Amino acid sequence: MPIITLTTDFGEKDHFAGAVKGAIYSELEEVRIVDISHSISPFHSTEAAYIIQNAYKSFPQGTIHIIGIDSELNPENKHIAVLLDGHYFVCANNGIISMLTSEINPEKIVEINIHDRIISNFPVLDVFVKVACHIARGGTLEVIGKPISEVKQLVGIQPVVNSEANQIIGNVIYIDNYGNVVSNINKTLFDKIGKGRNFKITARRASFNNIHTHYSDAIHFETPKERREEDGKKLAIWNSSGFLELAIYKSNPSTVGSASTLFGLEFRDAVTINFE
Amino acid sequence: MPIITLTTDFGEKDHFAGAVKGAIYSELEEVRIVDISHSISPFHSTEAAYIIQNAYKSFPQGTIHIIGIDSELNPENKHIAVLLDGHYFVCANNGIISMLTSEINPEKIVEINIHDRIISNFPVLDVFVKVACHIARGGTLEVIGKPISEVKQLVGIQPVVNSEANQIIGNVIYIDNYGNVVSNINKTLFDKIGKGRNFKITARRASFNNIHTHYSDAIHFETPKERREEDGKKLAIWNSSGFLELAIYKSNPSTVGSASTLFGLEFRDAVTINFE
Amino acid sequence: MPIITLTTDFGEKDHFAGAVKGAIYSELEEVRIVDISHSISPFHSTEAAYIIQNAYKSFPQGTIHIIGIDSELNPENKHIAVLLDGHYFVCANNGIISMLTSEINPEKIVEINIHDRIISNFPVLDVFVKVACHIARGGTLEVIGKPISEVKQLVGIQPVVNSEANQIIGNVIYIDNYGNVVSNINKTLFDKIGKGRNFKITARRASFNNIHTHYSDAIHFETPKERREEDGKKLAIWNSSGFLELAIYKSNPSTVGSASTLFGLEFRDAVTINFE
Repeated sequence: MPIITLTTDFGEKDHFAGAVKGAIYSELEEVRIVDISHSISPFHSTEAAYIIQNAYKSFPQGTIHIIGIDSELNPENKHIAVLLDGHYFVCANNGIISMLTSEINPEKIVEINIHDRIISNFPVLDVFVKVACHIARGGTLEVIGKPISEVKQLVGIQPVVNSEANQIIGNVIYIDNYGNVVSNINKTLFDKIGKGRNFKITARRASFNNIHTHYSDAIHFETPKERREEDGKKLAIWNSSGFLELAIYKSNPSTVGSASTLFGLEFRDAVTINFE
Repeated sequence: MPIITLTTDFGEKDHFAGAVKGAIYSELEEVRIVDISHSISPFHSTEAAYIIQNAYKSFPQGTIHIIGIDSELNPENKHIAVLLDGHYFVCANNGIISMLTSEINPEKIVEINIHDRIISNFPVLDVFVKVACHIARGGTLEVIGKPISEVKQLVGIQPVVNSEANQIIGNVIYIDNYGNVVSNINKTLFDKIGKGRNFKITARRASFNNIHTHYSDAIHFETPKERREEDGKKLAIWNSSGFLELAIYKSNPSTVGSASTLFGLEFRDAVTINFE
Repeated sequence: MPIITLTTDFGEKDHFAGAVKGAIYSELEEVRIVDISHSISPFHSTEAAYIIQNAYKSFPQGTIHIIGIDSELNPENKHIAVLLDGHYFVCANNGIISMLTSEINPEKIVEINIHDRIISNFPVLDVFVKVACHIARGGTLEVIGKPISEVKQLVGIQPVVNSEANQIIGNVIYIDNYGNVVSNINKTLFDKIGKGRNFKITARRASFNNIHTHYSDAIHFETPKERREEDGKKLAIWNSSGFLELAIYKSNPSTVGSASTLFGLEFRDAVTINFE
């Protein structure tokens, strides 16, 4: 059974996501619809890019991913369908999938051209659903669009390495449900530039000399539990998506505060690694 | 496979929605459950009415819609099942579906009378699930209720036209995820009263002389991008549900503010159109 | 078709829940995934325990429940799979299911030992999914773990009865979407200790001499509607889960306030019943 996933900024309350699911089931009796997220911050392409990048790989090959962010058709915002890494993505050409294409070459990109039949201000419902169902039925991308060679890039989301190759300057690209701060620096780049040297990570009020692999590395289990300070310990970690994350062990953003609030870090703030 | 949708004020956290889904699967092996929304404001019949009205049409004919808002049975709040526009609705008779019945005559309405067997303070679980599964198995409404001729009306949700027929006074009925403000004035009424005349829309601090069809009509694409003020432009628009909406182009309520905050508009506030 | 449910603190925005669903569908073509909640407060075992306890019973026998709260593997937090009341639970051994085991003896408990093959900081994705799919395919618990005899207990979640047997001291264990305050005192204990005597419930600013069975018991329907104060009436009630709940009839936490705010009650606060 084909799978169609949904990643949007529709929110949890409005009728938009429900209407889209109804439209898919009206076109296809046999299909599985999976919500990835409807809580992307409105029009926030970078968040959407981070989330779809980390979610899509778990799904079976051939899954169709609808991304409904900033998708109204206009002269500078075309609709595209992309085949990449064995998955299909249907979205606006506004940079959302450039985080994916920076790592993996797309097999095929088409600019959707079925709009002469459809004019609306709810393109996810009226255009993306039709394209996704066409693909789910086994249709080819060429039928619903004309091939193009590349997608629009999101600016400023790649980390920068200085000319001496002893410094990486990245940025905060996401703050997760636990208030932990995710940078755009991944382990591949870190290993390539660092070459095993000692280093110091700096991000506003926080600094770190180690990068851990488990959150509970913050805890000294050899100390008896009674004398141990358990919660609220800070650490840098390679998160499950392979990115450098600045975290507080077991933080609850709504009570004791989180990495984001305690370190004073927000979206786009710099995260710098200096190697010795 | 039958489809049962859920629209409730249960919220995203509590066990209520999960328990309802479990109960449906316990009754029916082969059924598709689709969440429309669980984030209706508590006991907010108008929000629920707006959301179900705009979501149901996308679903296939024969879909069964459970609406779990203010559904506790009491002498003034009976349970009903309604067949309308080829869809089934199971809810309390508290006005929620009067927005639907004002446009389309219901084919059948029954007052549910299976309560002698079931007493609870969680009627969605104990009553609505049983009724919905009965319908999903092909059962008729008469088996689970006695026919009645009309449903309770929500008061004050229809716009008013003055006696000179040059003014429509509507209300804010919904504020969406982007903070845009939806009125209860639809295009059919606007065209009927306006007859092509010039007009002015007024709602607190905002006024408009045009109604657009696309959000990006706010942008002058002929101006080079560098000199263009893109975000934060206000406009009046016919939204995808056919209602007059007062919007800010690409607003993010949690950062720069939204139509609701910038225009100072809340639920029930007046939206007036004066024709020349 | 097997059913796998998800109860986590992943939140509605992040990619975690989507990735987990993708991983399940990648392992099993024919499976039904049902979200119970992804909005448990971060690391809040008691909330998770309350929610899974009240949701699981509605599901068919044989359902597999993944609970993803505080699940990182460490020397003091092992992974377990439990068969109880005909349902399977896959979670960390951190007390989450002790609320269940205090009422019903588990049929089988195993400590999961497939970790030599899997090391990660996203154990729900890498371990729990594998275990759940193993069970869904009909596999036995012994294959993925070694039998143990009991689970870790959550401390302080059981109410206390004084030696004279005329007082029950319980606690607030949950505050629901309507702001109503749920205690850990259930009707079975109340009947056993109370034996029909008169009583007084006290919890900070609130006190009650009756426990109702329907929220609308707060309303005097014999009084004409015009002279009746409908909303905002307080009452104590046996909620649909069988626990003593202190409620405000039709409260909306975001506008007029709720039982929690009006009574000044928070998680862990005492709820006391004194019998005459």
